[in-house]
Amino acid sequence: MSQFWSDIVKNLTPYVPGEQPQNREYVKLNTNENPFAPSPKVIEAIDHFDRTLLKRYPDPEATKLRQSIADFYNKPLNQIFVGNGSDEVLAHSFFAFFKKAKPIAFPDITYSFYPVYANLYNIDAIEFPVQDDFSIDVNSISENTDGIILPNPNAPTSKYLEPAEIKTLLKKHPNKVVIIDEAYIDFGGESAVNLVDEFENLLVIQTFSKSRSLAGLRIGFAIGQPHLIEALQRVKNSFNSYPIDQLAIVAGQAAMQDVDYFQSCCDQVIQTRAWTHTQLQALGFECIESKANFILAKPLKHDAEKVYLDLKENGVLVRYFKDSKISDYLRISIDTQSNMKTLIDVLKSVL
Amino acid sequence: MSQFWSDIVKNLTPYVPGEQPQNREYVKLNTNENPFAPSPKVIEAIDHFDRTLLKRYPDPEATKLRQSIADFYNKPLNQIFVGNGSDEVLAHSFFAFFKKAKPIAFPDITYSFYPVYANLYNIDAIEFPVQDDFSIDVNSISENTDGIILPNPNAPTSKYLEPAEIKTLLKKHPNKVVIIDEAYIDFGGESAVNLVDEFENLLVIQTFSKSRSLAGLRIGFAIGQPHLIEALQRVKNSFNSYPIDQLAIVAGQAAMQDVDYFQSCCDQVIQTRAWTHTQLQALGFECIESKANFILAKPLKHDAEKVYLDLKENGVLVRYFKDSKISDYLRISIDTQSNMKTLIDVLKSVL
Repeated sequence: MSQFWSDIVKNLTPYVPGEQPQNREYVKLNTNENPFAPSPKVIEAIDHFDRTLLKRYPDPEATKLRQSIADFYNKPLNQIFVGNGSDEVLAHSFFAFFKKAKPIAFPDITYSFYPVYANLYNIDAIEFPVQDDFSIDVNSISENTDGIILPNPNAPTSKYLEPAEIKTLLKKHPNKVVIIDEAYIDFGGESAVNLVDEFENLLVIQTFSKSRSLAGLRIGFAIGQPHLIEALQRVKNSFNSYPIDQLAIVAGQAAMQDVDYFQSCCDQVIQTRAWTHTQLQALGFECIESKANFILAKPLKHDAEKVYLDLKENGVLVRYFKDSKISDYLRISIDTQSNMKTLIDVLKSVL
Repeated sequence: MSQFWSDIVKNLTPYVPGEQPQNREYVKLNTNENPFAPSPKVIEAIDHFDRTLLKRYPDPEATKLRQSIADFYNKPLNQIFVGNGSDEVLAHSFFAFFKKAKPIAFPDITYSFYPVYANLYNIDAIEFPVQDDFSIDVNSISENTDGIILPNPNAPTSKYLEPAEIKTLLKKHPNKVVIIDEAYIDFGGESAVNLVDEFENLLVIQTFSKSRSLAGLRIGFAIGQPHLIEALQRVKNSFNSYPIDQLAIVAGQAAMQDVDYFQSCCDQVIQTRAWTHTQLQALGFECIESKANFILAKPLKHDAEKVYLDLKENGVLVRYFKDSKISDYLRISIDTQSNMKTLIDVLKSVL
C-alpha cells in the first residue's frame, strides 16, 4: 500500500482467475475454455487479414463484428454492444446501470467477479441465497434493489433457469436493469435474447470465450434495447474508444458467421458432458445436472481439496474454490472426450 | 436518456476520436498513426502463432510482452504495466491515483480525453494555461492538487519539455502522482523513463499505436516504481483479468524487440516532418516546432475549418478541433513522404 493510491484502490479485493500455468503441459479443465480450436473460417479470416493495416486504429464501433452478432440473433445493430471480453462488458454495465441509491442483488453462489465489480465502483450488493439444490427461486429476490444480475446457467453451479422464470423475474422488477449473464447458454440452454423486445429492463451478456472458442481474442457482447446500449456506449467512449482490435474484429465476425461449426462443437461438448457425468457418478461423485460446459462435482468419500491437488500433481487442472460455500466441490470443465477419459483414469488411480 | 441509467452516465460527455471513415479511401492525416507497416518481425510473429491456441485465455499477466518492454528500457518486470491501448492505461491511472480529495491539474490545451476521464470518475480538474507559444511553464502549476498529468510532447500542440523541466516538476510535487503521457516521445524527445528510479511519484505512459505501428492491436503501457504498478494491477484485476489478447501479446513483443526497424521508422517520420514544416511555411502556415509525429499548423490567410473541409473534399483528412482554443489550427499527422507531397499539392490547389 502506498500514499499515492486512491482510497478505493486500497480497499480493492481483485478477482483471481483460474490458473494459467506456463511451466508445464496440463490437461486444462479449470477455466471452462472450449476444447475445440476456433472455426477454420476464423483461422482463414486471420490468415487473410492484411497485417500491414495494423498500423491503423480499428473501427471504434467494431461495426462488422456487431453486425455479425446482430445477424445471428436477428436484431438491429443498435441493440448490440461489444467489449474486450464479457468481463469488460460486465464492468461497464455495473457502472452504467448499478451505481444508484439502492443496492444490487446477485446469488450467494455465483461468478466471483460480481462482488469485485461492486467493490470497484462502490456499489452496495446484497446476496440472495440459492436453494439447497443450487437452484434459484426468482421470487425470493428482494424488490428493494436498483439492479439484479445472475448468470444463466449459473456459474459455478451450472444450474439453469428456463425463459419462463426469467420472464417472471423481469416482470417483478420492471424499474431496474436485470442482467442475464449467458456465458454458458449455448451448451443446452435457451437464450433470453428473445425477451429483449418485450422487456426494456433486460440486458443479456454473452462471450466468445466459451462456445465460440475465442478466449484468446477477448470478445464479449451485450444485447438490449437501444436505450441500454447507448448507456454502455457512453461509458465505453469515456474509457477507451477502441477496445476491440482489428484481428479480433475479423476473427469474431467469422466465428459468429460459422453457425454449423459452432453448433457441432456445442453438441460434442454436450455429449461428452453426459458421458463425464455418468463416469464421475460411478466414481462416487455427486454431480449437479449441468447446462454449461463444466460440471460441479462433489467427491462424496474424499476431501475435495485433496482430490484437486492430487489431480494437479498428475497433470490435470480443475478449479477448486477454497473458503467458499462450494469448498466440497470441484468445478471440472468439459474438454475433448479423450481428455475427459484422462481425467477419469487419473481419478481412478488417485481415489 | 433513460430511467435505467446511473446519474453518472447521464452526465458523461464522451471522447470523440478522429474520424475513421469506411466509405472512401483517404490520405489519412488525422489520427497520428504511423505511415509504416508494423515490423516484418511482427508480421512473422502473427503468421507463426498457432491459431488453434486462441481457444485458450491469454496469460493474464502478459508476461512476455511486459518482459520485452522491460528489456527495451532496462527495467525490472515489476515496473511495467500493460493495458488495452494507452487509453485504458490512462483510465485505470485516473482511477488508481487521482480519485482523491483535491483536484488534479492538466494543461488547458491537451489530450481531450483527460477531462473525459475526470468526468467519468467524478474527479475535479483544474487547467493550467499553456503560454502564448504553447509551451508549458512547469512552475505555474498549483501545488494545491492531488495529481498532475501532461503529455510530452503535448498533444495536440507538439510542444516538448526537456527532462530537466520534468525533473523540476517532479521535485515540486513530491506527494502526488505525476503522469507523463509519452504517446509521441519517440519522434525526437527523450523519455522520462530514466527518472523513474529517482522519483517514486512518476508514472510514464506510452503506446504501441504511434512509433510501433500497432494502433490496430491496442497496446499501451506504464512504467513506474512497483508501488504504482501494483495499484494499476489491482484496478485491472478488478475490471478485466485478460485485457491483452494472445495475438497482441506476441505481436507487441516482436515490435518491441525489433529496435532497428522502430528506429528507422521514427527517423523517416522526423525527416518527413522537417520537409513538411518547410513546405507548409512556404504556403503561408505558421507551424509549431514539433517533436511529435504531427504538426500543428495555422493557415495565416485562410479559415482553418474551410481548409480542413477543402482537404477532406479532395481526399485528405486532417484533424480540426472546432470550438477549441486551437480552432485556428489544423493538426496534420506526418505520413509517408509521398502522402505529405499529396497534402502539399492539394493545399496548393485549394488555397
